[in-house]
Amino acid sequence: MSRITYIKGAAQVATVAGASEAPKRGAAMADAGILENAGIVVEGDRIAFVGPDAEARRYVAERGGADVVIDAAGKTVTPGLVDPHTHLVFAGYREVEWVRRLQGTPYLEILREGGGILETMRRTRAASEEELVEAAKRRLDRFLLHGVTTVEAKSGYGLTVADELKQLRAVRRLHEAHPVDVVATFLGAHAVPPEYRHDPDAYVALVVDEMLPRVADAGLAEFCDVFCEEGVFTVAQARRILEAAKRWGLKPKLHADEMHPCGGAELAAEVRAVSADHLLKASPAGVARMAEAGVVAVLLPGTAFFLREPPADARAIIAAGVPVALATDCNPGSSPTVALPLIMSLACLTMGLTPEEALVASTINAAHAVGRAHEIGSIEVGKKADLVVFDAPNVAHIPYQYGVNLVDTVLKNGAVVVEGGVRCG
Amino acid sequence: MSRITYIKGAAQVATVAGASEAPKRGAAMADAGILENAGIVVEGDRIAFVGPDAEARRYVAERGGADVVIDAAGKTVTPGLVDPHTHLVFAGYREVEWVRRLQGTPYLEILREGGGILETMRRTRAASEEELVEAAKRRLDRFLLHGVTTVEAKSGYGLTVADELKQLRAVRRLHEAHPVDVVATFLGAHAVPPEYRHDPDAYVALVVDEMLPRVADAGLAEFCDVFCEEGVFTVAQARRILEAAKRWGLKPKLHADEMHPCGGAELAAEVRAVSADHLLKASPAGVARMAEAGVVAVLLPGTAFFLREPPADARAIIAAGVPVALATDCNPGSSPTVALPLIMSLACLTMGLTPEEALVASTINAAHAVGRAHEIGSIEVGKKADLVVFDAPNVAHIPYQYGVNLVDTVLKNGAVVVEGGVRCG
Ligand SMILES: [Zn+2]
Ligand SMILES: [Zn+2]
Repeated sequence: MSRITYIKGAAQVATVAGASEAPKRGAAMADAGILENAGIVVEGDRIAFVGPDAEARRYVAERGGADVVIDAAGKTVTPGLVDPHTHLVFAGYREVEWVRRLQGTPYLEILREGGGILETMRRTRAASEEELVEAAKRRLDRFLLHGVTTVEAKSGYGLTVADELKQLRAVRRLHEAHPVDVVATFLGAHAVPPEYRHDPDAYVALVVDEMLPRVADAGLAEFCDVFCEEGVFTVAQARRILEAAKRWGLKPKLHADEMHPCGGAELAAEVRAVSADHLLKASPAGVARMAEAGVVAVLLPGTAFFLREPPADARAIIAAGVPVALATDCNPGSSPTVALPLIMSLACLTMGLTPEEALVASTINAAHAVGRAHEIGSIEVGKKADLVVFDAPNVAHIPYQYGVNLVDTVLKNGAVVVEGGVRCG
Repeated sequence: MSRITYIKGAAQVATVAGASEAPKRGAAMADAGILENAGIVVEGDRIAFVGPDAEARRYVAERGGADVVIDAAGKTVTPGLVDPHTHLVFAGYREVEWVRRLQGTPYLEILREGGGILETMRRTRAASEEELVEAAKRRLDRFLLHGVTTVEAKSGYGLTVADELKQLRAVRRLHEAHPVDVVATFLGAHAVPPEYRHDPDAYVALVVDEMLPRVADAGLAEFCDVFCEEGVFTVAQARRILEAAKRWGLKPKLHADEMHPCGGAELAAEVRAVSADHLLKASPAGVARMAEAGVVAVLLPGTAFFLREPPADARAIIAAGVPVALATDCNPGSSPTVALPLIMSLACLTMGLTPEEALVASTINAAHAVGRAHEIGSIEVGKKADLVVFDAPNVAHIPYQYGVNLVDTVLKNGAVVVEGGVRCG
């Protein structure tokens, strides 16, 4: 018989239930499915019961009692948070560059000197797979402490066949070695590497003809992403890569319209991308097409905050019927954080989301953005027991106490991996 | 013989030394006194040595070795952080009001309904001293986890003689019962309570003639503060209160020019306030007078962020020669946080401070703002051993990894009170 864990008497349980088939949109985003004075029963690695605490107690008693009891009195339980956009695997931070930028040096000047993303590329190329795994493991530990139980992780700092494969092998090893589930995305088209500066199309051909087949053959990625932006990859190049990716069985994602309105949102709809991310400059027409095509908008308010720019127009995107998810964008250049709860605060304070919308965007909608909504992202019977107990009397406190990590307990696949805010198990 | 603690081989030690007599101003604020590969020796509750690690090792060896060794390899040590502006003692959070404000309800409407600060006043009046102490203790624990070893705490939610004294007795008990040092400020003039709505001058008379003498007699506060603002207390009322406070031996502070340019900065200079706080709308002339009078500007970028308003013009205030400190403003209405490291991130990202300026503002300059610079705020021989070890290779990482609490170890009066990010001792 499998182990029974009883999460007892929570002040609130935010189930975020009822949206496993399709992400929440429009007014539905404002409903995090909150139950008061509720209990949850976990059997093995699955959720067996969620509902009124008195019924949970009876359910447990009928099975002869619980093996583990977690007292959630005065606390709030949510699904494990899902971060659907990170550049988790990289070597070296860029705090020196950040300080220069604070003092007024433009990013393009840093890039011309060989800094910026080129610095991370050089250091990631120079690092061994083992070194990449070790550095990212520490970040995954911190993700878990912030209640994040699934993260997407992109390649894109290697930009050679060998180094892209190395990054993706690191992602696979992290997924296998760490409690956090890591979903792999191939982002060979993150930047045009210096060797191809004068012939970007040749680099696109390398991505399509060599990298993609190798990645697909080795089963190293589930998604394929492209950084579609003025001066990076054009819509035509992105289309070519994503169409090829689909033929190899990789699902498309897109870095779209971050700095200029490039038609990224339109392309995401056209290729039926699972998500289009950033969208600070997305056109209303592009957003409308995303709504029709069912593309999830992954918004990154931390990146806008860190780059000191206005965030995406989340209210307009929600009003257009596009399901919204939130992510950290964890990376050394534009968002060196793993604090998804602070991203929720930023979503409320800089984009006008409500706390319930921010939670929906960080759970079930984020699960849709990584193709995992059938098994995570909500507290429903049969789903994986990825759960977070916050030291908060209600959901609103999670973004309200901004910058404070209220995570008390985290269950991953039914096992307690964080207790009293500390890694365990 | 007193116990010897050796903090060994830190990648960086930010001493923030040389500013115990007067706070850092202008270009001096950009210098956090950083040593590389440095060691610190603590004897009893005092700093006995700080300098090159090889010398620290010799110093320890000559005294027969250390009782406690803290390995700071790859880490950064700073003085214990000082939070010079909090409303630590209160009953009840106001997350429901916050959600309404996010959705567009104006604060004045909430106030008219008896919400806002009036809600906190009612709940604080209704709470026992014991309840106030218990709730604030949990916040102090979290402050400590964020590296804060000294906080200022204001009254101002009682607004009756008995309730103001109750709040200040709670502050005293917290100071005695908790490792964090708590500095008491009497803020009877935080708001005009409803009972005096039609005769604010009568409330000012109550503050001056009854509250101040009782507070001073009982030795319950070291500072006196006034919320000087359109619709709250006028410059004339604030002057009357602060001049009376000085006669009772309380040093003046001022909530100045937060929402309107009211002449608060000018008044702070006139009464030789220790600090003037907020200053979002301070006039250039007022700021210039603060510089002449040596008033510390306590800036609260978290409050501006949480209220979705532009922050104070920190660069102009620094350029005018005013020493700047940073604070959380911890309170349930406009800044429900204890995360001073995130306030440093906000100072960099929303006010253009450098990481070193933000650290100076959160240590020695903050110590000046609470009259404690002779014993805390820098790592210098003879000062109290209030120290923080950050899991960061350099000072810049503290604000750069925004929203992530990098505090590893905290020493308070030479004793380890946080270890591996967890409360102990
Ligand atoms: Zn990205
Ligand atoms: Zn205040």
